[in-house]
Amino acid sequence: MASIFGNKIKVSVFGQSHSAAIGVTVDGLPAGIHVDQERLKQFMSRRAPGRDRFSTQRKEADAPEFLAGLVDDVTCGAPLTAIIHNTNTRSGDYDNLRDVPRPGHADYTAQMKYHGFQDVAGGGHFSGRLTAPLCIAGGICLQYLETLGVKISAHIARIADVSDTAIDPMIEDASEVYVGDKAFPVLSDAAGEKMMQAIDAARMDLDSVGGVIECVITGLPVGLGDPMFDGVENRLAAALFGIPAVKGLEFGEGFAATQLRGSQNNDAYTMQDGRVVTKTNHAGGILGGITNGMPVIFRLAIKPTPSIAKEQESVSFSEQADKKLSIVGRHDPCIVPRAVPVAEAVAAIVVADLMI
Amino acid sequence: MASIFGNKIKVSVFGQSHSAAIGVTVDGLPAGIHVDQERLKQFMSRRAPGRDRFSTQRKEADAPEFLAGLVDDVTCGAPLTAIIHNTNTRSGDYDNLRDVPRPGHADYTAQMKYHGFQDVAGGGHFSGRLTAPLCIAGGICLQYLETLGVKISAHIARIADVSDTAIDPMIEDASEVYVGDKAFPVLSDAAGEKMMQAIDAARMDLDSVGGVIECVITGLPVGLGDPMFDGVENRLAAALFGIPAVKGLEFGEGFAATQLRGSQNNDAYTMQDGRVVTKTNHAGGILGGITNGMPVIFRLAIKPTPSIAKEQESVSFSEQADKKLSIVGRHDPCIVPRAVPVAEAVAAIVVADLMI
Amino acid sequence: MASIFGNKIKVSVFGQSHSAAIGVTVDGLPAGIHVDQERLKQFMSRRAPGRDRFSTQRKEADAPEFLAGLVDDVTCGAPLTAIIHNTNTRSGDYDNLRDVPRPGHADYTAQMKYHGFQDVAGGGHFSGRLTAPLCIAGGICLQYLETLGVKISAHIARIADVSDTAIDPMIEDASEVYVGDKAFPVLSDAAGEKMMQAIDAARMDLDSVGGVIECVITGLPVGLGDPMFDGVENRLAAALFGIPAVKGLEFGEGFAATQLRGSQNNDAYTMQDGRVVTKTNHAGGILGGITNGMPVIFRLAIKPTPSIAKEQESVSFSEQADKKLSIVGRHDPCIVPRAVPVAEAVAAIVVADLMI
Amino acid sequence: MASIFGNKIKVSVFGQSHSAAIGVTVDGLPAGIHVDQERLKQFMSRRAPGRDRFSTQRKEADAPEFLAGLVDDVTCGAPLTAIIHNTNTRSGDYDNLRDVPRPGHADYTAQMKYHGFQDVAGGGHFSGRLTAPLCIAGGICLQYLETLGVKISAHIARIADVSDTAIDPMIEDASEVYVGDKAFPVLSDAAGEKMMQAIDAARMDLDSVGGVIECVITGLPVGLGDPMFDGVENRLAAALFGIPAVKGLEFGEGFAATQLRGSQNNDAYTMQDGRVVTKTNHAGGILGGITNGMPVIFRLAIKPTPSIAKEQESVSFSEQADKKLSIVGRHDPCIVPRAVPVAEAVAAIVVADLMI
Repeated sequence: MASIFGNKIKVSVFGQSHSAAIGVTVDGLPAGIHVDQERLKQFMSRRAPGRDRFSTQRKEADAPEFLAGLVDDVTCGAPLTAIIHNTNTRSGDYDNLRDVPRPGHADYTAQMKYHGFQDVAGGGHFSGRLTAPLCIAGGICLQYLETLGVKISAHIARIADVSDTAIDPMIEDASEVYVGDKAFPVLSDAAGEKMMQAIDAARMDLDSVGGVIECVITGLPVGLGDPMFDGVENRLAAALFGIPAVKGLEFGEGFAATQLRGSQNNDAYTMQDGRVVTKTNHAGGILGGITNGMPVIFRLAIKPTPSIAKEQESVSFSEQADKKLSIVGRHDPCIVPRAVPVAEAVAAIVVADLMI
Repeated sequence: MASIFGNKIKVSVFGQSHSAAIGVTVDGLPAGIHVDQERLKQFMSRRAPGRDRFSTQRKEADAPEFLAGLVDDVTCGAPLTAIIHNTNTRSGDYDNLRDVPRPGHADYTAQMKYHGFQDVAGGGHFSGRLTAPLCIAGGICLQYLETLGVKISAHIARIADVSDTAIDPMIEDASEVYVGDKAFPVLSDAAGEKMMQAIDAARMDLDSVGGVIECVITGLPVGLGDPMFDGVENRLAAALFGIPAVKGLEFGEGFAATQLRGSQNNDAYTMQDGRVVTKTNHAGGILGGITNGMPVIFRLAIKPTPSIAKEQESVSFSEQADKKLSIVGRHDPCIVPRAVPVAEAVAAIVVADLMI
Repeated sequence: MASIFGNKIKVSVFGQSHSAAIGVTVDGLPAGIHVDQERLKQFMSRRAPGRDRFSTQRKEADAPEFLAGLVDDVTCGAPLTAIIHNTNTRSGDYDNLRDVPRPGHADYTAQMKYHGFQDVAGGGHFSGRLTAPLCIAGGICLQYLETLGVKISAHIARIADVSDTAIDPMIEDASEVYVGDKAFPVLSDAAGEKMMQAIDAARMDLDSVGGVIECVITGLPVGLGDPMFDGVENRLAAALFGIPAVKGLEFGEGFAATQLRGSQNNDAYTMQDGRVVTKTNHAGGILGGITNGMPVIFRLAIKPTPSIAKEQESVSFSEQADKKLSIVGRHDPCIVPRAVPVAEAVAAIVVADLMI
Repeated sequence: MASIFGNKIKVSVFGQSHSAAIGVTVDGLPAGIHVDQERLKQFMSRRAPGRDRFSTQRKEADAPEFLAGLVDDVTCGAPLTAIIHNTNTRSGDYDNLRDVPRPGHADYTAQMKYHGFQDVAGGGHFSGRLTAPLCIAGGICLQYLETLGVKISAHIARIADVSDTAIDPMIEDASEVYVGDKAFPVLSDAAGEKMMQAIDAARMDLDSVGGVIECVITGLPVGLGDPMFDGVENRLAAALFGIPAVKGLEFGEGFAATQLRGSQNNDAYTMQDGRVVTKTNHAGGILGGITNGMPVIFRLAIKPTPSIAKEQESVSFSEQADKKLSIVGRHDPCIVPRAVPVAEAVAAIVVADLMI
């Protein structure tokens, strides 16, 4: 049940980096949602490689082909399935990885779990490429949520130690901080320039860097989510840790809240135009697992890309001995920019599931 | 489905702060597990109030009464249910809260979600008291896991800005850092003393503080967890955010990994006594959602207790106007020490579910 | 996850025949449902033993004690838990059953599955007694459904070869065929008299008989249920086979439909007062897994009570040899009458889950 | 969540009768299962139309195209996805059905549930064509189960009032009654001949007939399944009612057990070669929801094909009035023969899920 998620909307992701195709089935979408294919393609292109000078040069159109669930671009209530054909498959480049696992990747754990039957080519089912189908599902959910007044925007909050402007936690409309049209998804282009330098520096060193993605969701009604294990935080967390390389997640003030006093961290209530709002938003829009009507804000820690050109220490399964490893081929020295729309996509899937 | 969690082991928590009883059903435990009632009581006592000078003075034995699932203290394969009677129920102290929600609590979101029918007394189902049944379930899972060689230990990693010694991520046996016998669960008693001063200072100010809990799990086999949405991180996250006041979660290096280079963060492999191990453990024992045999390490951000004696700004539903609120009664100025066994308990439930 | 069922409303049943208590947790009920305790007790009494001259003489009040989820008899949104204390527990009468399994019971399968750790007393978790908590959950759901205009009535359709009058599949309101006030739940008292004779005859022979229960649900909206695996039939089936002794289930014409031509079995449509209805109801109110607004009708095959006084052939685990078995104690020669409210209860749980 | 089923093995079916493709994702299959493509095609061909003189003339290769999850025909642990392209799509023949629903079909319920957005062409997602992907998933599970010694065989037990020889409930190996190589899947060819005459007679009358499918599963270990809601009967029922046209299901003696005495229906135990077996198998291999090691036997009631050439009474949505309907095109006068492998397939999916 690994690659299936959700309650009312169930998302099932399939494919390996070099299988015939990758894809996604979304079961439970309401009938009658119009899918704007052009906007979906634009959304997909934000994740696609080759968008900036840092990403891998593997070129793929990544245009989703819809197999089912749409009639004239409108959902018909049946499960929606879309695939992307892999044009560049079954290369022999990866045979080496079956014997010498890449540090920081799932090569070793997959070898042990699947007893050597796993698809090693390109990382198989563990490849970052599998975020493309997530973006198909999420891109559709984003369009659906827009019709309900819900907006989701993410940006790079930090690369290495260079920080972007933070999103105002009291923001009314997430589209105000939409950076999807930029080649480098930051609020402050000056900060973005420094981030790009940090990425470049890592690349020069045959190395990689990680970073933090911040995401805001606005327009949510009060009362989404349930207590204990089915709160909005639980639901988002269960899905967001499915994005490769995510190693941390926080809501609202998150870890910083641990250094505040209660009187600082509590969000005071006030009446505004006949409804209850908070004066601050340290809680990130969630109390007791339930939305309070303020923006939901979360941040993801993305580890540095494990695939680096530098020689690394590993082992050889066949030789049962230590062995040096040099990873050939081009890899993103920083995956964070391409992960920004993925964060939006996964958030959209979870929120759409909650809204139905 | 809010208060039910798990796949093979399903945990269902019930009760409100002032209902007749609180309790838990654990469905799916293997038959034949012996429950050491004495050790379970000791474990429960770590969470119980009144253990140190900081916690609430509400006195409760919190001794679980087993209704089903045990025959002569051995699991019989049927669902196990245990309850704790609430002796101190239905007080009228809380009527005020129905009208004036406490900032930082679920009072407002519950009011909106349940249309005023929620149990306001003592926070109802949102009360921290509901972590007691979690500790029953978790305490049993801990005993079960021990028979499989799996150990789980948590400690306070930080209160406000005072840090404890960190757990060595290469630790072989979590019981080496077991602090459950201490009145204040830290590794460094000197640090603990400073933490207590920070808590005292907050209390003097009629305020509260938060902190970070760190938890380590050792003895796990390689290969637990599944890719994407059913990884060990996803599963732990989905449960851990069910602990009240948790606002952040990170695995291994977590957010700190975002400031490392790939070459620093990747854990090199080496052969040791015929099996593959890593030389470092930045990954916190999980790659691609699957355990790699190294210790699993996570940290939880616990926000400062929202219930503070200081006057706060809120609103009155009945008056539809802003209203000051002073919370009467004694409340923990810091919930972190009592949350330490809860972190162990929830981790144990998730891991037991994965191990079966 | 054996004893937990449902999507939005999750029902978790716990207890063994001779454990301290049996009970149920219902998670997901909307807040604000008033529970009429008197009516619930009346409903429970229909399942209780000792109601007629055929049932076991074990006397139990079976009055539910609510531990959580209700405030002044109104649901508060938190999980609702109710228990029934077992007054008559841990008798030594059953030691024999650990060694010599009763034919037709779960003694042998439980022995194999739980490796001898199962609770053998009174059938443990497999006892028909566990239908009492199902009736608590179902009784509340029935009251809730009534507020939505949904009615559910079951009756004994057949005992051995004596048939009751069938329910008119075009019935508008199920309460017209409510037989819950009768000591023997049939539509035709004359048929009931013959059924009682058949039961008596079996009892005289130290034997038992089975029968068929028919249940009708009216007031359902069009459009409940989902295609394929989440249809109304699938959902009802998954729950109804959880009632002990159920070995068959059919909807509408059911097995009889296999002897009709399509032109006979298809239900013609017609307009009636501005809405579409069918002229007949062979489909039992469900097409493609989805309700069509007509009454949902199903029938359950209940096997003859396996506990009979007659000597039977079994084996002795300890002797690893064939062994005769004589079951001592009083047992129902026919369980069907007491299973009638259980059928209503389980149907109510499933329908309430679908309606929310 | 309609079209997704299972616990450890999750099957997600997608597609509409006239969408670009139909297909299935199977998540959770163990790595290392070899898929014999030739045998899979043979299995698929048993369900395919045009096999005998009764089925529709729509010609389709129905050869599955594997998109993911296989490497050199061996499962790799990643979700397995296979599709079948629909060659004959988007015909305008069905526009009529949007306005005038076919009696006995899901046209009306889909119209109401999906507000007119459903795919009407060919019955959309409700089409019997969707059983083809079920057969892909089930065909693979059958191959997997064979390696574990589990065999599954179904046959037509009855068409209209013509019965086939029943399967011996004490059969040791289901492959002894495998009828998959026959054009008409019955045990007694003489009975089969009469069945074909009954089908022919219905066709001549522009009508259709239904029937009963019987299925046996051998080689199961003792102890599969869990009490109450997760028993083998519950699990099979929840899936089998997903096969279009199934209106009834019984295990072992099923409805016939209701006319037996307990002493007749109970299966006596005896020791045989050091293990416990039953002397008869009225229980159909399941007691308390748990397998007892004897063959599991179930029967499905299949209603007569609702699509008949005879004129029928329906309504026009647009005219809000009664309207006659004549269904054009060729349709199976009896769907039962083609449903036989589907029953095996669905049983195999459920059993594989239980065995893992």
